[in-house]
Amino acid sequence: MSTLTDPAPRPSPGPVVALDIGGTKIAGALVDGEGRVLVRARRPTPAREDGETVMKAVEAVLDELSAAPQWEEARAVGIGSAGPVDASRGTVSPVNVPGWRDFPLVERVRMATGGRPVTLVGDGVAMTAAEHWLGAARGHANALCLVVSTGVGGGLVLGGRLHPGPTGNAGHLGHISVDLDGDSCACGGRGCVERLAAGPYIARRALENGWRPGLDGDASAAAVAAAARAGDPVAVASFERAAQALAAGIAATATLVEVDIAVVGGGVAGAGEVLFGPLRRSLREYATLSFVRNLTVVPAATGTDAGLLGAAAAAWASSDPGS
Amino acid sequence: MSTLTDPAPRPSPGPVVALDIGGTKIAGALVDGEGRVLVRARRPTPAREDGETVMKAVEAVLDELSAAPQWEEARAVGIGSAGPVDASRGTVSPVNVPGWRDFPLVERVRMATGGRPVTLVGDGVAMTAAEHWLGAARGHANALCLVVSTGVGGGLVLGGRLHPGPTGNAGHLGHISVDLDGDSCACGGRGCVERLAAGPYIARRALENGWRPGLDGDASAAAVAAAARAGDPVAVASFERAAQALAAGIAATATLVEVDIAVVGGGVAGAGEVLFGPLRRSLREYATLSFVRNLTVVPAATGTDAGLLGAAAAAWASSDPGS
Repeated sequence: MSTLTDPAPRPSPGPVVALDIGGTKIAGALVDGEGRVLVRARRPTPAREDGETVMKAVEAVLDELSAAPQWEEARAVGIGSAGPVDASRGTVSPVNVPGWRDFPLVERVRMATGGRPVTLVGDGVAMTAAEHWLGAARGHANALCLVVSTGVGGGLVLGGRLHPGPTGNAGHLGHISVDLDGDSCACGGRGCVERLAAGPYIARRALENGWRPGLDGDASAAAVAAAARAGDPVAVASFERAAQALAAGIAATATLVEVDIAVVGGGVAGAGEVLFGPLRRSLREYATLSFVRNLTVVPAATGTDAGLLGAAAAAWASSDPGS
Repeated sequence: MSTLTDPAPRPSPGPVVALDIGGTKIAGALVDGEGRVLVRARRPTPAREDGETVMKAVEAVLDELSAAPQWEEARAVGIGSAGPVDASRGTVSPVNVPGWRDFPLVERVRMATGGRPVTLVGDGVAMTAAEHWLGAARGHANALCLVVSTGVGGGLVLGGRLHPGPTGNAGHLGHISVDLDGDSCACGGRGCVERLAAGPYIARRALENGWRPGLDGDASAAAVAAAARAGDPVAVASFERAAQALAAGIAATATLVEVDIAVVGGGVAGAGEVLFGPLRRSLREYATLSFVRNLTVVPAATGTDAGLLGAAAAAWASSDPGS
C-alpha cells in the first residue's frame, strides 16, 4: 500500500499573507511557496479587551506587513486561529478571547487586505497543514497531527489533502471521549482526551497523587516531565495515563479514517520519551485491527513557525485547483 | 452551512454486478443506475469449509447472474464483504469465515467475471454507500452510517463522497475505545463501542443484572428490547448503556471529521425508541463543541438490500471520474 503523495501544496509564484491568532499573541508573516518566512510582524493579543481592540491588533500586524515590498505580490491570506472557528461563516469565537464571539474575522481581514481572498482554519488544522507541507507528515496521504499543550487540538490529512471539514475544526481530538464515565470536561463532555492528557491535567494528577515540585515551586507539566525522567514513579504514572488517553484517541482516529501516522507536537510533546515511550506501548493496546496495526507516532518537526506556515499552506490548499 | 450535494453516484447507462458477502449468505445482483435490483442470486456461505469451497459458492452466484440477459451490459463489479478487508491488496479475511485469510477475492472475482473491474469495500462501507445513494444520508455531504447488530460496523461520507480509506475499512466505529479502562474486546482492545453496544452484549448485560427471558426462552437483544418497551428497568438500563457508548462514538466521529448526520441500521436499531431515545439524549452529553451540536441521528432506510445496493454504489463511486 502506497502512502506517498506529491508534497502539498504545490509551489506558488507569489507569497501569501499568513496570520496565526492565539490567546497570547497575534503573529503575521509573508510566506513564499517554499515555506520561507519573508517578513514577520507580531503583537500581543489584548485578550481581555473588547472585540474591536483585538481586531486593531490584527490590523496593526497587517499594516506592518504591508510595508514590505513583497506585499503587493501576495495574492491570498491564510488564517489559523484559536478555536472554535466557523469557516463556513467566516467567524471565530476563541475560548480565550471573550471579546470575539462569532466575530466576522474573514470579512474584516478581507477588508483590511484590499479584498484579498481569505481562508480560515482552526489552529490544529493549521499545524497539520504545516506538518504535511514541510514537517513529519510530509509524503503521507493520510495523517493525524496533534498539538498537546494547555489543551489538545489536532487536524487531519485524508487522501493526500488537508481535511479541515466544513467549519474548519476537523481533527479536534482533544474533545473526543475515551472514558465515557470519566471526569467532566470544560467542554461539557466527559472523559475527553484533553481532560486526561493536556499539560495542566498531567500536573494536577501528579500533585493529587503526591508528587511535589522542587525548590523553584515549578508545578508545570514540564516539571513533572523532569521528575519522570529522574525516575519519580508518580510523575511517570501521570505521563503514562496521558499517553494512554492519547493512544486511545489516536487509535480511534486511525480506525475511523485510516491514517497511518500520528504527528505529536506542542509543549507536552517536548517531554520526549517520557511521553512517546508509553504512547507507543499503549497504542499497541488500542490500535488492534489489521488495517491500523502499522500506525506510527512521531514528534512534530515544524517548530514555533508551525502556525504561520500552516496558515500559508491552508491558503494554498483552498486555492489549489486540484482540491 | 450547506450540507447538500448532488446524489451520488451519478446514474450509469448500464447495470453493475453487486456482491454482498457475509458469514451466513452470499448474495448477488445486477443493479441498475437507479438502484433497481434487476436479477438476484443467493447461496448460503459454507463458512466452516475451506477457502476454495467458499469461493465456489461465490462463483455459483455469479454463474446464476450471468444467465440474465443484462449480464453482458454490466461493466463493473462491486463487492461489500464482512471484514476485515484490504482493498489496497484486494484481499479479505472475514472473522466468521476462517477459510479465507488474505484471500485474493478481487482477483478471483475479476477472473470469474471475464476481467471486469472489481471494487472491494467492507460491509459497513457498503451500507454507507447505500444510505448515501438511496437512504437516510441522501443529500448529506458528511455522514456517518452504522450497523448495530451482532457487531458494530460503519462507514463515512466526507465532502460528498464515500470515504472507504486506503484499505476499505474506514468508519469502523465498533472498535474505537470509549472506555479506556473497560472490558477486554474480542479485537484485543478495551472498552470498544461494540463491546458495549452490540446485540449480544446488550443481552448479556441485562442477564447479568437480573433480567430473565420469558417462557419462550428468547434471550436475544430483541427480547431485551421488548422487555424494555414493557417497562422492565434492567432492560431499559441495558439499552441506555448501549446508547451511551454509541453516542460517545458518534460524537467522537463528528468531532474528528465533522459529520452532521448519523444513520443507524442493523438488527439492534430495530429496537426503535428504546435505543434512539436514550441515544439522542446521550448525544447531547458528548457532542458538545459548537460545530457538532446540530448532529442528528436517524434510522437507516435502505433495508435488507443495503449490502447489494451499497456494493453497486461503491463500484460506481470508484469509476466516477469526479472521485
